Amino acid sequence: MGVHEEIRDLARLARGAAVELAVASSALKDAALLSMADAIEAQAEPLKQANTQDIAAGEAAGLSAAMIDRLRLTDKRIAAMADGLRQVAALPDPVGALLGGAVRPNGLRITKVRVPLGVVAIIYESRPNVTADAAALCLKAGNAVILRGGKEALESNTAIWRVLQGGLRSAGLPADAVILIETTDRDAVDALITADGLVDVIIPRGGEGLIRRVTENATIPVIKHYKGVCHVYVDVSADLAMAEAICVNAKCQRPGTCNAMETLLVHEAAAEAFLPRVLKSLADAGVELRGCPRTRELWPDAEPASEADWDAEYLDLILAVRVVESTQAAIGHIARYGSAHSDAIVATDIRQIETFTRGVDSAAVFVNASTRFTDGYEFGMGAEIGISTDKLHARGPMGLEELTTYKYIVYGDGQLRG
Amino acid sequence: MGVHEEIRDLARLARGAAVELAVASSALKDAALLSMADAIEAQAEPLKQANTQDIAAGEAAGLSAAMIDRLRLTDKRIAAMADGLRQVAALPDPVGALLGGAVRPNGLRITKVRVPLGVVAIIYESRPNVTADAAALCLKAGNAVILRGGKEALESNTAIWRVLQGGLRSAGLPADAVILIETTDRDAVDALITADGLVDVIIPRGGEGLIRRVTENATIPVIKHYKGVCHVYVDVSADLAMAEAICVNAKCQRPGTCNAMETLLVHEAAAEAFLPRVLKSLADAGVELRGCPRTRELWPDAEPASEADWDAEYLDLILAVRVVESTQAAIGHIARYGSAHSDAIVATDIRQIETFTRGVDSAAVFVNASTRFTDGYEFGMGAEIGISTDKLHARGPMGLEELTTYKYIVYGDGQLRG
Repeated sequence: MGVHEEIRDLARLARGAAVELAVASSALKDAALLSMADAIEAQAEPLKQANTQDIAAGEAAGLSAAMIDRLRLTDKRIAAMADGLRQVAALPDPVGALLGGAVRPNGLRITKVRVPLGVVAIIYESRPNVTADAAALCLKAGNAVILRGGKEALESNTAIWRVLQGGLRSAGLPADAVILIETTDRDAVDALITADGLVDVIIPRGGEGLIRRVTENATIPVIKHYKGVCHVYVDVSADLAMAEAICVNAKCQRPGTCNAMETLLVHEAAAEAFLPRVLKSLADAGVELRGCPRTRELWPDAEPASEADWDAEYLDLILAVRVVESTQAAIGHIARYGSAHSDAIVATDIRQIETFTRGVDSAAVFVNASTRFTDGYEFGMGAEIGISTDKLHARGPMGLEELTTYKYIVYGDGQLRG
Repeated sequence: MGVHEEIRDLARLARGAAVELAVASSALKDAALLSMADAIEAQAEPLKQANTQDIAAGEAAGLSAAMIDRLRLTDKRIAAMADGLRQVAALPDPVGALLGGAVRPNGLRITKVRVPLGVVAIIYESRPNVTADAAALCLKAGNAVILRGGKEALESNTAIWRVLQGGLRSAGLPADAVILIETTDRDAVDALITADGLVDVIIPRGGEGLIRRVTENATIPVIKHYKGVCHVYVDVSADLAMAEAICVNAKCQRPGTCNAMETLLVHEAAAEAFLPRVLKSLADAGVELRGCPRTRELWPDAEPASEADWDAEYLDLILAVRVVESTQAAIGHIARYGSAHSDAIVATDIRQIETFTRGVDSAAVFVNASTRFTDGYEFGMGAEIGISTDKLHARGPMGLEELTTYKYIVYGDGQLRG
């Protein structure tokens, strides 16, 4: 049997499970999640043993220290996975919520009701905790999930998956509600993203190559979790002490994340007062600076920024800095080079703030706050499957509600169309 | 210049216009729509002249009488186009609505605000009125639109488009907010559906070949408007007179539409009482019947239904009929053969109704009403760009709100992430 047929068979199993899951009560789904959490803790030793195999293979394959660290399951990380499952169990069930409705003149009663998406496929890289986190969110939202992790984490993912399936069984739910693709055949991804009629949505979380491959080849809707080229714009009306603190936080607090600042834009009338102080703070924090000509006049230690710096997602302690002549120019820069993820203005002038929040077409636009807050937990969703960089269906942080769709249920008493 | 670069240049013009349109006031957009409506009426004669060329070419090319009829612009249809534009102007502007929000413990004020999608591309066939209808809805929702009509309607579409651009100009809005692709090069579609970063969504409205081509080749999100294989299930608890009226309406009132019934499912305990009466009414209305063995016992005039009949979208006075043993069996049939468009139950037993409405995963599930009501106007949206058969972003009738997305605008006073 070829890998395409193998994947379609798995997807059929998932679809069968999805039918049951769509009408499962919250109590059953929560029981499964709590049972999974207990089992993850109880099975910590076997999970770590499986992980040891991945670590050894990764070291032999020459993975970077950072990648090995991402791969490693520690007691703390295992406890965090179990906690995550319990937190998802504690969240309200999104399924069945009434989203709207109306009684029409002919008496038809239209209701719009939240329902699961069906079968969600998630393609991700390295961190094994995603296996538990993603499965939990999909399950709570009433979806079956097909997981395709990175081959470097296969032993860990498989061990976690077996524990999750045990939790489903113990609650009387179909074990096929969570399916892990065990083959490392690269064609499995192509089979998954073209399984029309069996899989409802593909969520790729990973690097540019993965995202491109999925986008170009998928025949199923994709919700991309792509890069963040995030900006902070400091207006002439800004409180400069606040602006400095926000810039340092947005760049340095966790530079490897998609919501970290990659480019600082400063109004030309604020540049002389602001740039020397903020760039000193950033340089002291170890940030490598790359500036436009005006920036380098004010801070000669900065390297010259090239065109490629304006759309770079460094994910590192590097920052591009540009002086702009107006809020409108900042908006233009962000439209041209940004990735529509998270962008901030620091200002006190309401007119500049309104211009910026209306004019910047990004998933999250911040006023006087760090871009680092783009996050499902920080936004109050209670959990997050990732951050969508797409505009359709889900934009920005994706929580439980974004893993659902709706249907119309329309009640009549014999209405006919005339 | 190749067609790919030509289309990308058009898309860049549309994107530039979209930036202006996203912040245009409702008053300006409505002024443009009303000006378009007046101009459509004033230009009725030139529009009909352009249409005459399409009709002549269509007749020379041997188009069917039905296709020629769809293509034809009459005074009545031109007046209807103008009325449609005025109706869209009268609808509330969806842009800027506050969809949700919260104040977080750290004082961050999260707001979720409705915004335009950006650039919408619509690929459609034959009816020239779609040019005006689709442009109006996209404009009202703050989007630029790129229209690709069928080559058989090119002269008519081009004439309508010029009138629409005049309306935009007279309101001081960018004429590039509505762009019609004038080349008939088939590669133009491929260029359009891969114009990443320039076009935000593709809405194909047409036959199976068009939908498949777009789905397989697009690298931009697609909202499909695909087929309707719609069912009416008559439970043993049904009011049989109501069931009969609903079946006749759902099949015969306008059989060529996607929300017309294609398969009738009848509970086995109702078959003897119900099938002879409903099939007589349907046969009297000119419907060709194709039945399962039990149906043919009760109505020998029916042809035997083959496997292909269960997933056929006839769009004609033909009906497949099957006797099923339970509501659950009806749900199973619909899941297997249906297209998740519109399905109805006729019943009085609340338990069967609940089972059906929960178990049928279709965009619209009707209780005691005709499937023909799946329609943006009938649902109270005031207008409709089409009926999505996808689950993501928009499901079922798509009105103005479904042509928008959202962004988060987050207000702080210096919050940093810890």
